[in-house]
Amino acid sequence: MLQEETLSSEILYDGLIIRVRMDTVKTRSGRTTKREIVEHPGAAAVVALNDRNEVLLVRQYRKATEQTTIEIPAGKLDPGESPEICIRRELGEETGYAVSTLDKLAYFYLTPGISDEKTHLFLATLGERNPSLQIPDEIGDHFFVPLAEALEMVDEGQIPDAKTIAGLLMAQRRLRGRP
Amino acid sequence: MLQEETLSSEILYDGLIIRVRMDTVKTRSGRTTKREIVEHPGAAAVVALNDRNEVLLVRQYRKATEQTTIEIPAGKLDPGESPEICIRRELGEETGYAVSTLDKLAYFYLTPGISDEKTHLFLATLGERNPSLQIPDEIGDHFFVPLAEALEMVDEGQIPDAKTIAGLLMAQRRLRGRP
Repeated sequence: MLQEETLSSEILYDGLIIRVRMDTVKTRSGRTTKREIVEHPGAAAVVALNDRNEVLLVRQYRKATEQTTIEIPAGKLDPGESPEICIRRELGEETGYAVSTLDKLAYFYLTPGISDEKTHLFLATLGERNPSLQIPDEIGDHFFVPLAEALEMVDEGQIPDAKTIAGLLMAQRRLRGRP
Repeated sequence: MLQEETLSSEILYDGLIIRVRMDTVKTRSGRTTKREIVEHPGAAAVVALNDRNEVLLVRQYRKATEQTTIEIPAGKLDPGESPEICIRRELGEETGYAVSTLDKLAYFYLTPGISDEKTHLFLATLGERNPSLQIPDEIGDHFFVPLAEALEMVDEGQIPDAKTIAGLLMAQRRLRGRP
């Protein structure tokens, strides 16, 4: 029996994006313990390629890590929103690009030891860009690099973001038929 | 100017593993906004191979996600502990294996939009196992699979954990010289 029975559950923090709850559980050996759990609405992320096999990346300052990171585009799910709708919306709002094709690559948890945050990962090809869209300057700077170059950036430690590493490497495997 | 100036900072939750603080910041466009930030001590994770090129995985129930996951071994850093010491300790305590060689593969953030949680990823070869170690049954079940099979599990969506996907795919690239 791998599951843990919840004996009681209490919300200890209810914030802007997350909630924190403390579950009291009975472990499979019968011991009673606490599980601190961060509830998150979930997210969608995308490896988005243009017709030159270049991947769309975003350079942005992250207050939580106090550094500028390079990541694939991603966004939180709105309440009731499907991951597909979310990622089309995010790309549209933050880059102006329409999505031409959209395929599921995977889903994964980021920190399953402490959070239910689930990310849905997509592989997309981009269509036309809305030329009149003004991008707010807090969104981050979007740029394209050849996929091979993005993979080198991963190898060289220039992309310190788990969803981006997983996304770029899974996309490569998918695109070349899982070598 | 990509950085955000912190105008004020308040701890809103101080828990077992995490703290949550709310920073009031001035964005690069001069706007004042809130940043909800989850502070985490950081972690180390390892792609650990035996002498048959099999990788050590752990199957465990995760209360946060309410499911049984398959992950590479990982653990939180103790206060002041180096990632190298952490991963040797975790492997020793949870599997009984000594580490023969240990190389850094990468570090990455899991959710840089909201948390400072940083994971240090290693590639290890395993040495002898302590035959007298009793593994507590809450640790999860450790098992070896050929690395190629673990990669197939990633492709087939059987490993819904970002650090494990990133770790296995980065290890493969490192081992075969970045194809």
